[in-house]
Amino acid sequence: MASGARVIIVGGGFGGLEAARALSRAPAEVLLIDRQNHHCFQPLLYQVATAALSPADVAWPIRTLLRRQRNATVIMAEVVGVDPGRRQVRTSAGTHDYDFLVLATGATHSYFSHPEWAPAAPGLKRIEDATDIRRRILTAFERAEAVQDEAERRRLLTFVIVGAGPTGVELAGALAEVARDALPGDFRRIDPASARIVLVEAGPRVLPVFPDPLSDYARRALERAGVEVMLGARVVDVGPDGVRLEEGEIAAGAVLWAAGVVASPAAGWAGAEADRAGRAVVEPDLSAPGRPEVFVIGDTAAVSSEGGPVPGIAPAAKQMGRYVGRLIAARLAGRPAPPPFRYRHEGDLATIGRRAAVVSVHGLKLTGYTAWLFWSLAHIYFLIGLRNRIAVALNWAFNYVTYQRGARLITEPAAPPPPPG
Amino acid sequence: MASGARVIIVGGGFGGLEAARALSRAPAEVLLIDRQNHHCFQPLLYQVATAALSPADVAWPIRTLLRRQRNATVIMAEVVGVDPGRRQVRTSAGTHDYDFLVLATGATHSYFSHPEWAPAAPGLKRIEDATDIRRRILTAFERAEAVQDEAERRRLLTFVIVGAGPTGVELAGALAEVARDALPGDFRRIDPASARIVLVEAGPRVLPVFPDPLSDYARRALERAGVEVMLGARVVDVGPDGVRLEEGEIAAGAVLWAAGVVASPAAGWAGAEADRAGRAVVEPDLSAPGRPEVFVIGDTAAVSSEGGPVPGIAPAAKQMGRYVGRLIAARLAGRPAPPPFRYRHEGDLATIGRRAAVVSVHGLKLTGYTAWLFWSLAHIYFLIGLRNRIAVALNWAFNYVTYQRGARLITEPAAPPPPPG
Repeated sequence: MASGARVIIVGGGFGGLEAARALSRAPAEVLLIDRQNHHCFQPLLYQVATAALSPADVAWPIRTLLRRQRNATVIMAEVVGVDPGRRQVRTSAGTHDYDFLVLATGATHSYFSHPEWAPAAPGLKRIEDATDIRRRILTAFERAEAVQDEAERRRLLTFVIVGAGPTGVELAGALAEVARDALPGDFRRIDPASARIVLVEAGPRVLPVFPDPLSDYARRALERAGVEVMLGARVVDVGPDGVRLEEGEIAAGAVLWAAGVVASPAAGWAGAEADRAGRAVVEPDLSAPGRPEVFVIGDTAAVSSEGGPVPGIAPAAKQMGRYVGRLIAARLAGRPAPPPFRYRHEGDLATIGRRAAVVSVHGLKLTGYTAWLFWSLAHIYFLIGLRNRIAVALNWAFNYVTYQRGARLITEPAAPPPPPG
Repeated sequence: MASGARVIIVGGGFGGLEAARALSRAPAEVLLIDRQNHHCFQPLLYQVATAALSPADVAWPIRTLLRRQRNATVIMAEVVGVDPGRRQVRTSAGTHDYDFLVLATGATHSYFSHPEWAPAAPGLKRIEDATDIRRRILTAFERAEAVQDEAERRRLLTFVIVGAGPTGVELAGALAEVARDALPGDFRRIDPASARIVLVEAGPRVLPVFPDPLSDYARRALERAGVEVMLGARVVDVGPDGVRLEEGEIAAGAVLWAAGVVASPAAGWAGAEADRAGRAVVEPDLSAPGRPEVFVIGDTAAVSSEGGPVPGIAPAAKQMGRYVGRLIAARLAGRPAPPPFRYRHEGDLATIGRRAAVVSVHGLKLTGYTAWLFWSLAHIYFLIGLRNRIAVALNWAFNYVTYQRGARLITEPAAPPPPPG
């Protein structure tokens, strides 16, 4: 094991992994702690939720990704708390001392002060969320085929997606393809293509981070795919049978949540002030105020760059991870600290479905087939390793040619939890 | 929807599917009921449990498999009971009338009158069992890496597989490969290759259905792979921390059960006598005694053919399904009933691991590389559809070349169950 400064990184997402990698040649012992054993490629999670891909296509064991980095150790444990005075992280697997701490714990769904909505409207952050959503979608069609009552059948065949950011748009578009293309031939009593898919958005347009013309295109593409887009519509209640809007109720067989995120509780651990979204307000070098040895990165950090807030997306998390890793390496080498973190926006991509996507990269604006091809190639490129690239490409080719989905499994939560000890 | 005699098939495994297909041109309305939405290729389930394959590689939606058969309807529902007098099947989705009933509900694990052992020692029948076992195996290695206590680490790195039939042998061999080949480079504090893998068998040899020399070969191949084979060893207790044998205790991080099966409760539904393994004792034409319109097939049926009992394996279930489907079709067409069911044994295959397998087919006996190649090609052949064949072949090629496993995910049971209604 390498000896040197002890760097603890909490979280094996895009930010945490980049931070670990940036320390590969530093005189440091890196300990990466995550409560799950895998890194998940969240941008494609909606494809697991809509039965196009398998969980293993978009996830990798964190320790395999750091296999060759001999100064990195990975443990799977739950962080219980941080003692910044003693410089210790308390976990379900013991207490660990650090010289530097990087908090990269990401974000989770926010239900606008209504946590009681969560069981009825899962969001999409983890592999388990994706298989949960997949189960709900497919189970609704199964129940609709089995049920006798017509009103109940209509309810079961109605799907509401709350929030029209990239995740909501991609879920709605993919769900429309499942209903219109993949399922119809398989059912006898219902017509899956008659399913009602409603995308509910409180703001005035879909994909608000994109330029206006691309938002317009995305809305029209969704509507062409058979998605009802409701703009300026505010959700006031969510329950197991549907949602209530200010304008009225929608009885639904499944409600999916893509409306808001809140940072994990790392701001408290770092002793930093939290913004409205729970993110730790950090210094320009991403350190916690008054704690130059504690850093917060990715969706957990609130930081501005060139006058605007840094968005909660994968490239931003990677850039922060790399920056902090290099900053720690510089300090350990006695080199001068790098200038403040500066975010470089690479662009925005979102897909609506078959041959329909929007791309806004460095002033380049694309829609339709070209954008879809760009989106597909970019995502294959960003996957890790040959196996997953081939697996995803194979599944997409299968999907494209046959209109089928290869992972249409309803799996139940396992009956007994793993034994303690 | 075709009209005609109402045939209800309960269970979409190998037997139930074959029965449905054999009725494709009969003047019948076929209703296939299963509590899961997918047909599972059980012979490869151990590869999901050992992280080589994804669930979707070995499972297909039942309704997709019967997509083109217009006289077949599939519903996902739980069968609550059968009323043979009224000829009705009661399910979680209403009551259904039948003219013919085919019970193909399979078998589940038997714990020798110790159902309390089940939570500590999962068996391998469903997709959920496989991901549960995968979680236990991978979690044991993760905990061993995180834990400080040496005795606890030794316990966590000990795996006990109970039962040395094909499933136990294949699990033990695959687990040895995970420990010796896939994991070592990924850990820093433990040596996964030092894991102790114990295959416990009460009988005098492994793979008892194979000829003696093949059993011997399999035992030696397992030992070469680093599996401890304990023959004539009887399990007297199983708990979350390991197993107790007559000879002493083995503290273990995971215990896997491959020792016995018991038929599902269909014997009671059919009004037939059950044998010791819970299987319905049926007539030579697989009908329930005194109920010529009720049939029991596959692992749920106890039937003899040419003086010997028909084994509980996939080819037998398929043959029974085809036989019963054709028998019902003959009756509907007013043709004479076929002669009694006659089982044709096609052979036995089992694999131990990389380039090691045993094959006993029509007097042909193979071991080693040739057997392994035969086993691999046969299993690719028996998979359904091009997508899954390519996916499995790709994963095997990846596994063969890199010694890695592509689906090393620890996934938790989803937090909230799906909403009711």
